[in-house]
Amino acid sequence: MTNTIRISVDAMGGDKGPRIAVHGARLFFKERKNVSFIFHGREQDLLPLIDEYPDLKPHCRVVHADVVIEMDDKPSQALRKGRGSSSMWAAVQSVKDGEADVAVSGGNTGALMAMSTFCLRPIEGISRPAIAAIWPTLRTDIIVLDVGATVGGDAKQLCDFSILGAALARALFDQDQPTVGLLNVGTEEMKGHDEVKEAARILGAASGEGFVYHGFVEGDDIGKGTVDVVVTEGFAGNIALKTAEGTARQVGTYIRNALKADIVSMLGALIASQALGALKRKLDPRNINGGVFLGLNGIVIKSHGGTDEIGFKGALGLAYEMARNKVMDKIADGMSRFPTLGTTTAPSATANEANSA
Amino acid sequence: MTNTIRISVDAMGGDKGPRIAVHGARLFFKERKNVSFIFHGREQDLLPLIDEYPDLKPHCRVVHADVVIEMDDKPSQALRKGRGSSSMWAAVQSVKDGEADVAVSGGNTGALMAMSTFCLRPIEGISRPAIAAIWPTLRTDIIVLDVGATVGGDAKQLCDFSILGAALARALFDQDQPTVGLLNVGTEEMKGHDEVKEAARILGAASGEGFVYHGFVEGDDIGKGTVDVVVTEGFAGNIALKTAEGTARQVGTYIRNALKADIVSMLGALIASQALGALKRKLDPRNINGGVFLGLNGIVIKSHGGTDEIGFKGALGLAYEMARNKVMDKIADGMSRFPTLGTTTAPSATANEANSA
Repeated sequence: MTNTIRISVDAMGGDKGPRIAVHGARLFFKERKNVSFIFHGREQDLLPLIDEYPDLKPHCRVVHADVVIEMDDKPSQALRKGRGSSSMWAAVQSVKDGEADVAVSGGNTGALMAMSTFCLRPIEGISRPAIAAIWPTLRTDIIVLDVGATVGGDAKQLCDFSILGAALARALFDQDQPTVGLLNVGTEEMKGHDEVKEAARILGAASGEGFVYHGFVEGDDIGKGTVDVVVTEGFAGNIALKTAEGTARQVGTYIRNALKADIVSMLGALIASQALGALKRKLDPRNINGGVFLGLNGIVIKSHGGTDEIGFKGALGLAYEMARNKVMDKIADGMSRFPTLGTTTAPSATANEANSA
Repeated sequence: MTNTIRISVDAMGGDKGPRIAVHGARLFFKERKNVSFIFHGREQDLLPLIDEYPDLKPHCRVVHADVVIEMDDKPSQALRKGRGSSSMWAAVQSVKDGEADVAVSGGNTGALMAMSTFCLRPIEGISRPAIAAIWPTLRTDIIVLDVGATVGGDAKQLCDFSILGAALARALFDQDQPTVGLLNVGTEEMKGHDEVKEAARILGAASGEGFVYHGFVEGDDIGKGTVDVVVTEGFAGNIALKTAEGTARQVGTYIRNALKADIVSMLGALIASQALGALKRKLDPRNINGGVFLGLNGIVIKSHGGTDEIGFKGALGLAYEMARNKVMDKIADGMSRFPTLGTTTAPSATANEANSA
């Protein structure tokens, strides 16, 4: 009854080689049967790996690609070297050609974004793609974008990101009118730079059309889960994401060190080991692995390069949900409902004001 | 033998009234005798509070100020209403007049920054003030600035912040050549916007003159303590600070909830209570209370408005260290050693490039 979701996998991406990708796919397949995979990469590496999983094998196809994009290839280098011939490019191309519903790669982010943009092209009306992160909070998972696709962004881009993020929230969280907040240095109207103030004005006027505009939010509102979608440009978004990762790791280290401080603490930790295990799983970054490239004519998921098969399975799960819940349709719907931006903003004036601010 | 450090206190700032300020001063006085206080605020409120502490009383002076700046007064409003007449203004004025070595206020940040800038004026050669945060990391405490004084910033400002932050590190951490990193979305040279790339070039050339330029750092480098001073403009810095606070609170809540999940976990937590108590103190934001206003002709410390007497004592401690270690002298020294910026940067060109980036 349910359609098969076809996932295209760049099996050569990631620091740990193709085994992670194939093993992750097997783990995911055990949970969801209505899925098939196209693995792009070196046949000689991939075929023996797939032979190890006879249950998975009939649902896989291997497409040979010789060139592997390295983690330190610059985006322009990667395009020159791998356009057409690399496993990364081929994985994205499968989505463009309609052979797959979604692509997943653990390869280098800049190269993947460059190839995805070049191959799939931005959706007409959306100025630039964004990377969205699924962010666990005290309330529920929320979406934060852009976490690093584009440095800087005018009001139009922030509004585009709001449409994209709201569509993702409708797809993943089954929410009809997700709340959207603009990340800022304060919640008062006069705070922030001109771009964010102008975006606030436009979003306020468009509120109700597929999302509810909440207003400005601050950095600590992310962890609280104040809104379903936090919108910002890629510089601040990337700083927020990585600072949060760093802080979580820091506090995690504090906990471990505290509970190893002496024999009594160790005994207490042993007794509470079930709770601490659950906590550890909650803080495990593998459970929320996957950045979503939004704003292109097709969906690409970036898995963390250093993850293992559990993490890669998480990225595949995210890809699956994106395709199953038809996020592309929801973006198109969100765009059609959003009031035309052309009449409400004057980009050149805004940019000039920003300079003198 | 040691000189008395004279601290000027806006006793009416903060959400909880003057009791916090006076009680905090008493707690601090019990630890450090060579300190005296000028409390600015309503005599009728302050005199009875000081009468409660006969040991503190001889080391205090109350200067009556009628006007109280409210937490929701806008900076311009606050200046109109409180210039000359408010406890906040008077606290800063004491520093300008040489009656105090440093000022502390728990009042609203925007108003305090506006008054401090108006009253003390920026140091000649420094374009704008910054707010520096003392940030606990896995290695040691480090300094992050600007965490919210100025939105946006060109290369010159980022270099100014480096000088200021390095001077603060030399004063507080007794380091001769603190390492300085520029916050960015990646560590490769081509990453980030033009301002940060230009600042990197200038700082690279100036490295060794009172600081060592490390290069770009990312958000997760803050919690690791990769460098002694992390420099960024106020928008990204404020987002980083508040996101980290939110994440620490979120993980703290996870820990509490996990250890209350069932009776066995509670027993384990009880046994490990000493370690968990130490952890709680480590995560207690009151221990690192105080934003440092840098770049003005005098030092002002912003205490968190919602803190209690323990937190206020922390802010007084920070103020004390700043004055004792002569941070103003260290800034002057850092500026004199830094190669002239005028010849190495062209602000208008940089700003234009940023727009088209």
